[in-house]
Formats: sequence, structure tokens, C-alpha cells
Amino acid sequence: MTIAKRKRVEVCFSPKQFDLYKKGFNTCVVIDVLRATTAISVAIDSGLKAIIPVSSVEEARKYKEKGYLAAAERGGEIVDGFDFGNSPYTYMNPELKGKEVVLTTTNGTKSINIASELDTVIIASLANLDAVCDWLVAHNEDVLILGSGWKDKFNLEDTICAGAITDILIESQKFIADEDSTIAAKFIYRSAKENMFSFLKASSHRRRLKKLNLNEDIKFCLTPNTIKTVPIYKDGKIIKAKSWVKIDEKV
Amino acid sequence: MTIAKRKRVEVCFSPKQFDLYKKGFNTCVVIDVLRATTAISVAIDSGLKAIIPVSSVEEARKYKEKGYLAAAERGGEIVDGFDFGNSPYTYMNPELKGKEVVLTTTNGTKSINIASELDTVIIASLANLDAVCDWLVAHNEDVLILGSGWKDKFNLEDTICAGAITDILIESQKFIADEDSTIAAKFIYRSAKENMFSFLKASSHRRRLKKLNLNEDIKFCLTPNTIKTVPIYKDGKIIKAKSWVKIDEKV
Repeated sequence: MTIAKRKRVEVCFSPKQFDLYKKGFNTCVVIDVLRATTAISVAIDSGLKAIIPVSSVEEARKYKEKGYLAAAERGGEIVDGFDFGNSPYTYMNPELKGKEVVLTTTNGTKSINIASELDTVIIASLANLDAVCDWLVAHNEDVLILGSGWKDKFNLEDTICAGAITDILIESQKFIADEDSTIAAKFIYRSAKENMFSFLKASSHRRRLKKLNLNEDIKFCLTPNTIKTVPIYKDGKIIKAKSWVKIDEKV
Repeated sequence: MTIAKRKRVEVCFSPKQFDLYKKGFNTCVVIDVLRATTAISVAIDSGLKAIIPVSSVEEARKYKEKGYLAAAERGGEIVDGFDFGNSPYTYMNPELKGKEVVLTTTNGTKSINIASELDTVIIASLANLDAVCDWLVAHNEDVLILGSGWKDKFNLEDTICAGAITDILIESQKFIADEDSTIAAKFIYRSAKENMFSFLKASSHRRRLKKLNLNEDIKFCLTPNTIKTVPIYKDGKIIKAKSWVKIDEKV
């Protein structure tokens, strides 16, 4: 029996620091728990054909003018002139099945586009936590987890989700972590995990969303493992990832 | 009796993010626990007249050529051609009393120079933790704590020290925190505080220094409250801060 070399899992707190951490990675997991990557995961799980993530409202508007369904959120609110934003509940609508939706959000879609310079980009949230971890274990490559933060700053909820993925991957004994940011994310997750909702009471983004009466959204976004779909970014679109089995492991 | 408005205390994890966090602050506390700000605090406590922090080895070399005492550290080691680096023990030498020393280090002196665009810059470490907190409470201004990190990345030991200062200032009931980074630093400190040495076993920088046989330095740097001096940056030099008493509080 040969013992396989363990893969690395590391955490980068915000897109602004991506260049400092990306070296040596081909796989990136993008997180924006409140709410972009939760909404995207729900959308793909609910049968949307694809989400097209764009960084600016202008780009989203151009798509809309061409007849695309388009969603835009800034600062927690739906942008004027768009029909919907990034509430996960929006994307459970059966009328969206089989459709493509263009999406721009304050932080999440920017992170996805920044991460897209790597070969493989996976969309993660607490909603699809275990599914993403299973996929990453099967994928068996070094993984950089990118939190979307809030306007380039560190945020708590993305770090907790990154810490949860780290913890599960390390417990699988197939991954190791080296960076201080990764160790910190794991500790923050462990402090938070018994009661995420109360831990995040003080988080700045949660307070921001609470003002906007988005408590139902927040509750959904902070509940782990409500869905089993893993979205993947391919050629400009986010679609459902196939289960990943390495050829040489089939033998 | 009037109730004074509480001041803000916030944490910025690395110099690279300083611009994202500095708005509204006139006072910055710079931390580089392993080892620059510990060494500087010890130096000023031991009677050095001043430390002149410079960002590059070239600058330090120019000062040395002019006859200054100069110290330079890169990657944990003394740079060739310099007599000493940033070991705190170096600066306990009585022969340095009353002298000025030019210092450049991998992370800490750069952070000090970046922070120097604010009016007041204080040098903090675990070694002078309580003294710094007392000074900040008396100073009674909003405080941004800047961790030096490692080559612009997040690091654990500076975050723990930042979290300790945050925790003490909030407990004083004279400060509040708002940023997620600050909440995270406080939680990481609370996870670590019972046994800092064992908590930091895994930290990347500690492993780096351990390879260099710097265990005695690390133990000293991680021991809180060994000295009571607060160094302050003024006009290009770090000197001993006067105790700070607000005129209107003397009444």
C-alpha cells in the first residue's frame, strides 16, 4: 500500500489578497455566504441551467438589454431596473428552471471572476458545505478557499465557512494546512459552530442585512447542508459540477 | 455626570490593507510580536535614546556608512554586514544606553513607516501589553491596531496581540469595536490566551524562527507584560512616550 501525499488546503480572506496566496494552486473555492454563493448554489440546485457572473452593474445591464434574465445587488439591495438580486429564495422559483441568469453582486461575483484565472473554480456556501467537501476530496488537488469579504475587507461569515471546509478536509486526513490564515479560519469556525446565528449577531454584514429586513435570508444562508449540489465555473458560466472520479482511482 | 462617547478600536491584519481601514483614525498601534516591536519596546525600556525605523536594507546601510549603529533583519536572520538584527536580547545590552540605533526588519519597520501617515503611532507587543492599553485609555482617541503580518499576509501572533489589546480596551468600557476583523482578533486571542506558546506551535512564522534556533526569543516575545514602557514614533524616530493625561481630565 502506498500512502498518498496529502494535498494542501489554504484560506485567503478577501479577493484583494488573492495574488498573495494563489501561487501553486489550480483549484479555488469561492465563498460569499451572505448571499451570492448561497443563492448561486440554490439556483443550480433548483434546476437553473447556468448563472453568468459579471463584475459590474453595467455589464449586467448590457446582458439585460440583449434579452437575458439579469439580477443585480449592491449593498444588500436590488439595483433599480433589475427584477431580482441575490436572495436565495428568488432562485427556488420553478419558473427559472432550465434558464440562464446573469448575476452581479457587491462582492461574490467579483471574487468568482478574480478566481477564474485558476483552472477549476467551485462555488461554496454553508448550504452545500458537505457536498463541496466530498467533491474536493474526490478531486484530490490542492485547494485555495477564497472568502469574498466585504468590499475587500475580511468578513466573519465567509471565514467561518472557509474554516468549516478546512476542518472537514483536514479531518479526512487527505489535506494539510500551512498558512496562519487557514489556522485562524479553523479556530474561528470552531468557536462559532455550536451557534452560528448567535456568533454572527455582531458581524457587520449581518447588521447591514438586518436593517434591510433580510432575517429569513440570513437564517437560510447560515443553515448548513440544505442542498447537495456543487456549482462549477466553466467558460464564463456557473453550471452543475459532475461528480469527480480520477481515472487512475477507478482501477 | 456626563457619559463620554465610547471610542472605536479596530484591527487591520496587515499593512497591505491599511488603506481599507485607516479612514477616520488619527492613532495607530503597530504590532510585530515576532520580533520587531518586541525588540523596539525592550530597547526603549532598556534606555536606548531612539530607534530610527527604515524600510529597506539600503537605507540602513547608508546610515551605517554615516557612522550610525544599524541593525538589519530579513527572513529571521541578521543581514550580512550588520552587527545585529531584531532579537530583543540584543537591546538589553547596557552599552546601548543613550544611543540611537537604525533598524530595518522584514515586516515591522515597514508597517511603522506606513502607519506614520497618522498623527500618533504607538509601538506595541505582548511585552508591553498592559502599559500600551493604559496609555490608550488615557489618550482617549479612536485606535486602529495594525498587525505587521508576514510579507503582507495575515499572521497569528500579531492578531493575538491585537485581540488582547481589543479585549482589554472593550473591557474598560471606554471602547467599542465594529469591524469583523476586530471581532475575529478578539475571538482568536480568547482561544489562545491560556497557552499562547502551544497555540502558536503551528504558526508559520514560529516554525520559521524555530528552524533558526530562536526558541529563547520566541518565549520572551510571547510572554505578556515583562516591561512597562510605551514607545512612540515622532519625526522619524521611536522614543519613549510620556504618560498621557488629558488636560480636561485633570480637573
